[in-house]
Amino acid sequence: MAKINDNYLKLAAGYLFPEIGRRVNEFVQANPEKKVIRMGIGDVTRPLVPSVIKAFHEGVDEMGYAETFKGYGPEQGYAFLREAIAENAYHQRGVNISPDDIFISDGSKCDTGNIQEIFGSDSKIAICDPVYPVYADTTVMAGKTGAIQSNGYYDGIIYMPCTAENGFIPELPTEVPELIFLCYPNNPTGTVASKEELKKWVDYALANNSIILYDAAYEAFIRDESIPRSIYEIEGAQKVAIEFRSLSKTAGFTGVRLAYTVIPSELTATDSEGNAVQVKKLWNRRHTTKFNGVSYPVQKAAAAVYTEQGQREVQEVIDYYMENARIMKESLKKSGYQVFGGENAPYIWVKTKNNMKSWDFFDKLLREANVVGTPGSGFGPSGEGYFRFSAFAGRENVLDAMERIQKLA
Amino acid sequence: MAKINDNYLKLAAGYLFPEIGRRVNEFVQANPEKKVIRMGIGDVTRPLVPSVIKAFHEGVDEMGYAETFKGYGPEQGYAFLREAIAENAYHQRGVNISPDDIFISDGSKCDTGNIQEIFGSDSKIAICDPVYPVYADTTVMAGKTGAIQSNGYYDGIIYMPCTAENGFIPELPTEVPELIFLCYPNNPTGTVASKEELKKWVDYALANNSIILYDAAYEAFIRDESIPRSIYEIEGAQKVAIEFRSLSKTAGFTGVRLAYTVIPSELTATDSEGNAVQVKKLWNRRHTTKFNGVSYPVQKAAAAVYTEQGQREVQEVIDYYMENARIMKESLKKSGYQVFGGENAPYIWVKTKNNMKSWDFFDKLLREANVVGTPGSGFGPSGEGYFRFSAFAGRENVLDAMERIQKLA
Repeated sequence: MAKINDNYLKLAAGYLFPEIGRRVNEFVQANPEKKVIRMGIGDVTRPLVPSVIKAFHEGVDEMGYAETFKGYGPEQGYAFLREAIAENAYHQRGVNISPDDIFISDGSKCDTGNIQEIFGSDSKIAICDPVYPVYADTTVMAGKTGAIQSNGYYDGIIYMPCTAENGFIPELPTEVPELIFLCYPNNPTGTVASKEELKKWVDYALANNSIILYDAAYEAFIRDESIPRSIYEIEGAQKVAIEFRSLSKTAGFTGVRLAYTVIPSELTATDSEGNAVQVKKLWNRRHTTKFNGVSYPVQKAAAAVYTEQGQREVQEVIDYYMENARIMKESLKKSGYQVFGGENAPYIWVKTKNNMKSWDFFDKLLREANVVGTPGSGFGPSGEGYFRFSAFAGRENVLDAMERIQKLA
Repeated sequence: MAKINDNYLKLAAGYLFPEIGRRVNEFVQANPEKKVIRMGIGDVTRPLVPSVIKAFHEGVDEMGYAETFKGYGPEQGYAFLREAIAENAYHQRGVNISPDDIFISDGSKCDTGNIQEIFGSDSKIAICDPVYPVYADTTVMAGKTGAIQSNGYYDGIIYMPCTAENGFIPELPTEVPELIFLCYPNNPTGTVASKEELKKWVDYALANNSIILYDAAYEAFIRDESIPRSIYEIEGAQKVAIEFRSLSKTAGFTGVRLAYTVIPSELTATDSEGNAVQVKKLWNRRHTTKFNGVSYPVQKAAAAVYTEQGQREVQEVIDYYMENARIMKESLKKSGYQVFGGENAPYIWVKTKNNMKSWDFFDKLLREANVVGTPGSGFGPSGEGYFRFSAFAGRENVLDAMERIQKLA
């Protein structure tokens, strides 16, 4: 008798973004004449930059001729791309990461979910609250938790609340976790971590033999040069941290699909007999056994991001989004909201007025202003009463949405 | 103290294909003047067909303009592709599969590995021996097995030997498994399953509440019209079978990456309290939580395979490979080998002479004929003494390789 993985039944509700999609579709179908502005899912809207389009076409062309056709590539990614990333994302910032430590994949969502497989099934996991829901959901699916409690927390996960009271910076956990998910610039709060703050975590992980799973999907949005873009800018981090990065927001690849995970050779964890095992070796085994590499033309397109011209073009798009963020932040403040983030991150984190519940604000905003945002409570219990706006819309829509919200207020 | 997933340490050796790659690279580096012909990894060599290239370019172009740019798509795949597959791969063959039952992914390797996650961790799994190594390896990684035994079998997996003696058709297992991996046309033996044979399995699964994980990655190579291309051609299969398909071999997508998994709505498994749960719903949850959909231009390219022109072009390529298979089969017979498969499958399964060990034959062939094949024992203990050739090489290489092997004999 075939049995299901019962852990799936513990999942509290649908994954946040499909649920938003459902409510929006319902509204749009009932109100086809309304122009809905979407600032909910953190999805980009600007087209791919010219260098990327050019390289993408070249990659496709190569596939059309026997002489240049590419079949299976290395599961870890082509050397040309791993080298470009090592050089541009790390060496140029003084961080010594080898191309061999970089594993190309089709998304950080996949990577942050899949990474848990290579660790012990009883590994205790710490996550911020609120946070990108995938960390908790995949932990539940893997059977590392109990049921959800009345406070919205899954039994067995160490939650680290991030609220306005602590400046959205979590405290070091008293119960020591094996794995610690950190995300900076933060999704959803838009908070960044200073060098001192990150050092605190690296030192904690070093002292406790924990591993930090560092989600740096939004590093490209950091404008303050004093803020680290990579956790490897902190001494000792290569011994304790895995870094996840993505071209989704950096270069508009949400529909193109390319990300990468960095696992330095020095990073080890122990087997049941206490022997140190290279974590990279395990991830390599997973990657070669359960994954077949990223589409070749996509890798060609991604490499173009790291050319001089590509970097310039991509930076323009990021500047465009960050100007959106500035406009939004100012306007939302003017509308009387308490506003966080949006300075080194594409997310603006807003406190609802009069402690309105997040989903109530979502429905009100959708119905009355026809604007879609993301309810803070969807990111965890401490997100209740907050709301996330993403700065990825087109300028006209941003201005339009802000005007509608001002009227609402 | 971070701990690894110890199950990874149970894995017998490196994944088969990287190991082949390692030996070939070593040989090539030591003998740079030799022209090595690769018929090892089942990788295609013909370029993408013109319709696919055209649609791929169009997809890329759309990404370059704000009006047509696509960000995140539906994780399950775009409707245009799911509908094209339902119509062409199923409806036209009289099989009633809904587009909603089709989940687009980036590879069958990922899907056949990941599918195990949604079933109970104590699910007993049956696999053919020999077989594509991913089924067993991912079962081991998931902790569903014990250690490897001296006979090469992992404790806890039900193996179904397939040898010349039983015509490479496994017997129904006496110990009832929850999950049964079947692959037809078979990798590596090139065997196909008749309607009667498949009906036997569907009836067994219906009677025992087992689920068949049906890998149909090579269905496009079936030339005998009486042989089912889909397990859903068998009555009742929609209640008990998940089907995996891929464009890798069908349309030369090994470097492009697109596959799909079919889970009919009727297919259920039970939770720990004995309630029936729709398996499709769980897979949908996994897909939306741990995956972000396939690259949009790749989906556009894939849809072109299902146009009239695309079908014609793709069929020509398959005919080309199958003519290779015919040539190889004939030549290998002439060289005195006992040869199987290769008539409705792109794989030719050869018995080594004088019971030579598979890896010994691999090394001999590489050194003396500079031809790369796949050692049968890499697919499981019953593959010992056999060898797999793939028919995916260019014609000239095929003729060349066969000539060299004839000299060897």
